[in-house]
Amino acid sequence: MPKTKRVHNFNPGPAVLPLEVLEQAQAEMLDFKGTGMSVMEISHRSKEFESLIQTAEADLRGLLSIPANYKILFLQGGASLQFAMLPMNLRPSGSADYIVTGSWSKIALKEAQKLGSARPAASTESEGFRSLPDRLDLDPKAAYLHFTSNETIHGVEYFAEPMPPADVPLVCDASSDFISHPIDISRYALIYAGAQKNAGPAGVTIVIARDDMLERAPANLPIMLDYKTLAASGSLHNTPPCFAIYMVGLVFKWAVKLGGLSAIEKINRQKAGLVYQAIDNSGGFYRGHAQTGARSLMNIPFRLPTEDLEDTFAAEAKKNDLIGLKGHRSVGGIRASLYNAMSVQGAEELTKFMKEFQQKQG
Amino acid sequence: MPKTKRVHNFNPGPAVLPLEVLEQAQAEMLDFKGTGMSVMEISHRSKEFESLIQTAEADLRGLLSIPANYKILFLQGGASLQFAMLPMNLRPSGSADYIVTGSWSKIALKEAQKLGSARPAASTESEGFRSLPDRLDLDPKAAYLHFTSNETIHGVEYFAEPMPPADVPLVCDASSDFISHPIDISRYALIYAGAQKNAGPAGVTIVIARDDMLERAPANLPIMLDYKTLAASGSLHNTPPCFAIYMVGLVFKWAVKLGGLSAIEKINRQKAGLVYQAIDNSGGFYRGHAQTGARSLMNIPFRLPTEDLEDTFAAEAKKNDLIGLKGHRSVGGIRASLYNAMSVQGAEELTKFMKEFQQKQG
Repeated sequence: MPKTKRVHNFNPGPAVLPLEVLEQAQAEMLDFKGTGMSVMEISHRSKEFESLIQTAEADLRGLLSIPANYKILFLQGGASLQFAMLPMNLRPSGSADYIVTGSWSKIALKEAQKLGSARPAASTESEGFRSLPDRLDLDPKAAYLHFTSNETIHGVEYFAEPMPPADVPLVCDASSDFISHPIDISRYALIYAGAQKNAGPAGVTIVIARDDMLERAPANLPIMLDYKTLAASGSLHNTPPCFAIYMVGLVFKWAVKLGGLSAIEKINRQKAGLVYQAIDNSGGFYRGHAQTGARSLMNIPFRLPTEDLEDTFAAEAKKNDLIGLKGHRSVGGIRASLYNAMSVQGAEELTKFMKEFQQKQG
Repeated sequence: MPKTKRVHNFNPGPAVLPLEVLEQAQAEMLDFKGTGMSVMEISHRSKEFESLIQTAEADLRGLLSIPANYKILFLQGGASLQFAMLPMNLRPSGSADYIVTGSWSKIALKEAQKLGSARPAASTESEGFRSLPDRLDLDPKAAYLHFTSNETIHGVEYFAEPMPPADVPLVCDASSDFISHPIDISRYALIYAGAQKNAGPAGVTIVIARDDMLERAPANLPIMLDYKTLAASGSLHNTPPCFAIYMVGLVFKWAVKLGGLSAIEKINRQKAGLVYQAIDNSGGFYRGHAQTGARSLMNIPFRLPTEDLEDTFAAEAKKNDLIGLKGHRSVGGIRASLYNAMSVQGAEELTKFMKEFQQKQG
């Protein structure tokens, strides 16, 4: 059999998955654990699926050291649906605070404002979303304080959580840096993340909620928008996205095998370090978007001297099997996404290409 | 390589998928069309994914002869989320009518009642959900008339649409008989279906909506609950469930290749005919749940003389690689689901087993 072609995939999400995870999914595609069925064909009420989802949950609990008073939900609709579910459940009345550090937190605030009261506790938009805010204007009675731990488009990342006032729950959209480094879950009341960056394929959203956060919803929420009902059924109120949950479970298992999140963070720092170094050593040919203190380990947006050169860079990179480097259509430029499953070798190949590309421009 | 074990899968959903679809997904798992990436790793904004989703849509348009003034959406959250989205979008004020013929339409009505006014136009619950209603009590000013074309748990199916009053849009939850036989789309204002019966794996929900149905939503609906915004982006407002859409596309292609929905209906009638015949010829040993005129071609729930015998039946069947025959936990008994991807041979094996099992009881 000819060796399958594989590229270095810098896509921002859906993104690169661990090769061994894909190979396992491939191997058991027609017969999942001797059932004679694909994992897509078994019942979500079967003992095989029950074991699968419970193992995924247990592995995630282990990876993030999630205490027993937090529930883990596997939902659908992406972080974008959470932008609405979150205020519906956690802010039946009152107001919520949002820290706006990029496109995603800005949309989260806007969605929350559709349904009730929500205000920016800070915004770095006027400076082009390059940094984390110096100070927060916090409502001591806020229903919650929301932040986006990593802004996928602007490449700014929190490495220490913002501090809410006493009794204000901290809520985080962790979609693009989920399970990329250890965090102290006890600081959070609720974390949500679309899987399609570090945790698996698109189609499943993970919500980790402290038990008291499940008690705030108003009566008569639609079932599929009600955290409490969804948690009570163990994410099995209706048919869940079984295959996506299966893949997420395989990715969790892979992360455990790598040595957990401290080991993964170390590799992520190494990869991002290589690319930031290539930017910093380019004499201004490559210009990073984020300020040094806020630089994301996951997404590295940068510019070249001209848009033409950026187009050439992305096209030439693609010819060298370095894929997915075009920046988000809303900001342009180049963006390298270096999620957990990106290899160190991939980051090395990219920096090698960056140096050669710069040299060719003379 | 040893032949992979495959069973006859009578699961009610998630359900059997066409073997050749699974084999294709397996073959291109590591390298989708020469990209060097899995279909789960490519961008939903890439030309490859754009082509994939457009082909899926075009094939579905062909299969159901969907006119140009209908939009096709690939959403998340299952039919259960549609139970809420539908009234949110189509009934901003006013009242909706629901025909209640089983567990699913009953839940759909209940969810609609949470958010506004909705009433049963008929209910067959007092007779145990065995038939279709003789007459409807219709509101001539209803925002829409909702029916469930096939009740998965009770096995009653509509073969001709109920007739709403003039100007009342007809809305259908077609989850469990979607693309199992031809329908006249022009009779419908909106159809929705979870994919995990006939159309693919769990994790994607298909909505077919006439253009005027997109114009009814109130301002300030959350984006992810707003048909109009989702339609305007071609189901790509946020990251869609890419792999599930890919699988659905492969299933549509397979259905086209089989000769389309008339050919598929013929096979479905043959399979269901075999099982109903086995029930009818059993001298009362097997008793079907649904009345003759309402018998589903998709789900055939039936009882045996005792619950003990039913347990033995399901367990013995499993030993014979006939899987997924236990009835829904809410009603008990046996249920054989015979979706599009169930082979005629599978139905034959089941009826053979039914006869032998009855004979063994003496």
